[in-house]
Order: sequence, then C-alpha cells, then structure tokens
Amino acid sequence: MSEDATPEPGTVYLVGSGPGDPELLTLKAKRLLEEADFVLHDKLPGPKIIELLPDDRRQDVGKRAHGNRTPQWEINERLVELSREGKRVVRLKGGDSFVFGRGGEEAAYLAEHGVPFEVVPAVTSAVAAPGVAGIPVTHRDHASSVSFVTGHEDPTKPESTVNWEALAETGGTIVVLMGVTRLPQYAQALIDGGLSPETPVALVERATWPGQQIATGTLETIVDVRDEVGIEPPAITVIGGVAGTRESVVDFLRNDYSQSGEGVSND
Amino acid sequence: MSEDATPEPGTVYLVGSGPGDPELLTLKAKRLLEEADFVLHDKLPGPKIIELLPDDRRQDVGKRAHGNRTPQWEINERLVELSREGKRVVRLKGGDSFVFGRGGEEAAYLAEHGVPFEVVPAVTSAVAAPGVAGIPVTHRDHASSVSFVTGHEDPTKPESTVNWEALAETGGTIVVLMGVTRLPQYAQALIDGGLSPETPVALVERATWPGQQIATGTLETIVDVRDEVGIEPPAITVIGGVAGTRESVVDFLRNDYSQSGEGVSND
Ligand SMILES: C[S@@+](CC[C@H](N)C(=O)[O-])C[C@H]1O[C@@H](n2cnc3c(N)ncnc32)[C@H](O)[C@@H]1O
Ligand SMILES: C[S@@+](CC[C@H](N)C(=O)[O-])C[C@H]1O[C@@H](n2cnc3c(N)ncnc32)[C@H](O)[C@@H]1O
Repeated sequence: MSEDATPEPGTVYLVGSGPGDPELLTLKAKRLLEEADFVLHDKLPGPKIIELLPDDRRQDVGKRAHGNRTPQWEINERLVELSREGKRVVRLKGGDSFVFGRGGEEAAYLAEHGVPFEVVPAVTSAVAAPGVAGIPVTHRDHASSVSFVTGHEDPTKPESTVNWEALAETGGTIVVLMGVTRLPQYAQALIDGGLSPETPVALVERATWPGQQIATGTLETIVDVRDEVGIEPPAITVIGGVAGTRESVVDFLRNDYSQSGEGVSND
Repeated sequence: MSEDATPEPGTVYLVGSGPGDPELLTLKAKRLLEEADFVLHDKLPGPKIIELLPDDRRQDVGKRAHGNRTPQWEINERLVELSREGKRVVRLKGGDSFVFGRGGEEAAYLAEHGVPFEVVPAVTSAVAAPGVAGIPVTHRDHASSVSFVTGHEDPTKPESTVNWEALAETGGTIVVLMGVTRLPQYAQALIDGGLSPETPVALVERATWPGQQIATGTLETIVDVRDEVGIEPPAITVIGGVAGTRESVVDFLRNDYSQSGEGVSND
C-alpha cells in the first residue's frame, strides 16, 4: 500500500458496504474500516458486516433509544464534529452511498462546512441482488437500459415524483428499491403504463445476507407471490424480460446464500 | 475463510473487476483471482488490474492477433472447454458483468452446456464514475430514478432500441455507457424529448484509472466540451440535475486519480 493511501485525519470517507456479504466489501472499504478512528453506520450493511465493526469506535445511527432513526441533520452535524476533532471518519452505508443512500446530501453538507471528504464507490444492491439471483439487469435480447427507482412513494398520489408510465415506455429493465409495501400500486401503474401483465418479475430479499430469499412471478401474480413467500424489506424488485431468464440458468447457478455462513469470514 | 468458500474445479466465476482501481476490487474477486487456475479477461478492467494477473494463467480475449476482438461464441466455447478440463475459471469483466457486460449471455451458454457457474457482483462504472467525480446518481432534490443506457446505437436510426424520449420523461438521472462517439445524436434526442438544453452533463473518462479525466457542461455545450478536453472512450456520460452538484463539492472532494499510482498497490 502506498504511503499516501492512508486515511487523512479530519477527512470523512463516504463508504458503501455492498449488499451485505463481507466478501463483497471492496479492498478499500475494508482497509478504511480497519484504519478509521470512528465509523458511523446504519442497519443496511447487514448483520455480517456490522459484526465486523469494532464496538468501541462505531455508532449506529440507524436507530435510537426510542426506536426512531437519527435525523439526517444530526448525522450531518456529527460528521462535521468528528472531523473537527481530527478523526478519520468512515460513514458506512449499505450498497453504494450514491444510490438512494443520501450520500449526495452528506457530501453537500460536508463541503458547505469545509470538511474534506472522499467517495468510496461500492457494489449496489440494485445490481447485486438481481445478479446473485442469476438475473442480468441488461441483456442484448431483453433490455438496452435499466432504471433504478424508489418504490417508496405512492404512485396514486399527485405528489409522487416517479413517472411510472415513462419508465414502462423505456422498454428497459426496472429495478425498484424500497418497493415491498407499495408493490401492488406500482405493479398496477406499470400495467396502466403499457407493460404486459405477463412481464416477468423477481423479488430478492436480503441479497447475500443469511436468509436470502428469491421469489418470481409476473406483474399480475407478484403480489400474491410476495405474500405467499413472505418477502419483507429490504428487498429488490426486478421487472422485465431479464427476470424471466433466471429460470433457465438456476440449476447451474452456484451462488448460495440461503444458508448462513456462505462465503463469510470473520478474521 | 471457510472451507466451502474455495473455488470448485470445473466452475466458472463470472467476476466483475470494478471500474479499474485495484482497491475497488471486492475481497471475493481478489481471492478468486488468486486461487483461479485460469483467467479470461478483456481490456476494460484497466491497466492496473490487468498487471496484477498472473501471465502464465491468463488469456486476453479482448484483442486478437489481427486486432479483432475474440467473437463471443469463441469465448463461450473456451469457458466450457476450461470447465471440462476441471479448471477453476474466472471470467473477468470491467465493472459489473451484468451491466452491459454480456454476463447474461455467458451465464445462459454455460447453463445450456451443463457448466456450474457463480456470479460475483462488482462496482459498476455507471455508479462509480459519477461517484468519484462527486456526483450522486440519485438525490432527493434532483432525481428519484436513474437509468443506465447504451449510447452505442444511433438514435436517428429506426432500429435503435433505446427510447430517448421516454428516458427524458422519467425526470431521473441518465447515465450513458459507450456514449462518447454518439454524444451529439443523443444529446439532441434528449432535447427533442423535452429536456432543457441547460440540463447539466458530466463526462468521466477512465474513472479511477491513471489519467482519469472529468469534464462538465450542459446538453447544449457538452459536445464542444468533449472535443476541447479530448474525452475518449471508455467514458461515462451523466445527464441531469445531479451533474450540476459537482461544482459545489469539488473543492473538498479528495478523490484523486489524475496522478497515476493513487490508491494503487501491487503487492
Ligand atoms: C435506502 S435504499 C439504499 C440502497 C443502497 N444505497 C444500495 O446501493 O444498495 C434501501 C433499499 O435498498 C435495497 N437493498 C439494500 N440492500 C439490499 C439487500 N442486501 N438485498 C435486497 N435489497 C437491498 C432495498 O430495496 C432497500 O429497501
Ligand atoms: C461494454 S460497457 C461495460 C460496462 C461494465 N460492465 C460496467 O459495469 O462498468 C463499456 C462501457 O463502460 C463504461 N466504463 C467502464 N469502465 C469505465 C471507467 N473506468 N471509466 C469510465 N467509463 C467506464 C464506458 O462507458 C464504456 O464504454
């Protein structure tokens, strides 16, 4: 490792953890976690990665005493404070910090307050969750684009900022994050937007965590499938022809996270 | 490392290398590269990662003697052949194999021929290239979706499968891969599709490689910017409000790949 690669005092590292398997951390994320003076994290990195963090220099900002999440402004202020103490700080997020991770807001706040920061890109669950299920998000025969979208907003509400009709019209793969609860609403919105009710859909829950679950159906059947299998957050919804390709490869796919401990090391 | 994590003879590992900085390899990719009997790769992993590969057990399928690329069917057959010899094979791609990487086609071929395979997700350049430039692909104030799309097809041709108008209408960030040459055509298609000519655009060439270059402009100016700065493939085009946020953070952004050697280690 070259000298200049060691973390700088007073610098905040915006680090993504990947989807949850500790082996899907980048070499850089691992090194920074080892060398940091302090780690601020939430729950999304998952149990296997969180148990690797040193208890005496981490803070879980995903939950507070009364079950509420730490508000974003408080996290922002804490980052600035730690930097002013000269700490080398890792802000650890699940997946990649810049994919529905509020990393952009944190970067803006840090810059506004004169705090140097570095972005450490990571494996996003939006690619990895389909991937470990054998589903490529793009494919010559099925999709020349892929869109990642939040399923958090209610598509029937006028204040929804997501244009499901336009997403349907792209003809590409649609990957929905935070989309377990509102699955019925956006599945319908996509059908209304012109997608066939037969369009293949896959749900991947806790990808690469112990207890990963995968379920498949179509835009028409997927809500029932979700309920039968008992899919719960965090999960990814993959919509489009590519979701249908899993079936033809699954017998030879050796990714196996259904048993805990797969590919996981604690040393 | 647990016993069962060692690679299996006869198994093909579809491994992404990340954008090019060897420290953005995942721990799993690094381990598999060390343990594999054979590595088939192309050029996109970049010079720093390719120089880490053992010369006596790698094959560059990105270029052939006469300057042509190895055709996909030949790569597919070679993977099956190596598997049948009982080799533990890594198929290494730039970024993530399942994001415009033809990983889906290779997986399908392997399954058809009874070859066990595993998918090893990676950091895609579509997220990392904007990221190291300080640009989040999603942002509360700017984008509730992001679409990755190929810029390889000519949007003025009827056989183009990309719906630029629908992409414009999503209102989200648009990230174009393989989009240096046809930038004039799709920038115009997006303006025709309703995006403002003032929409911020960033180009990130060879993200995390030695010699990384970043250039910014708007849909109206970006073609001139590309030519002045001399942006060449491989590069990512980021289109949308998020591209405009770089300016306000760049003074405090400590990612620096403009000098070769940054964050790179060869041991
Ligand atoms: C606030 S977003 C953060 C996304 C994250 N920054 C990323 O790049 O993966 C939270 C959503 O990410 C998805 N997600 C994150 N990790 C996941 C995993 N291991 N398996 C399935 N979905 C996951 C779920 O859709 C979850 O609701
Ligand atoms: C065939 S696609 C493969 C994408 C790859 N599978 C990924 O996930 O990044 C090739 C395109 O990826 C983009 N690309 C790959 N690596 C890059 C890098 N380090 N910097 C900028 N663009 C890159 C460029 O747009 C390039 O034309």
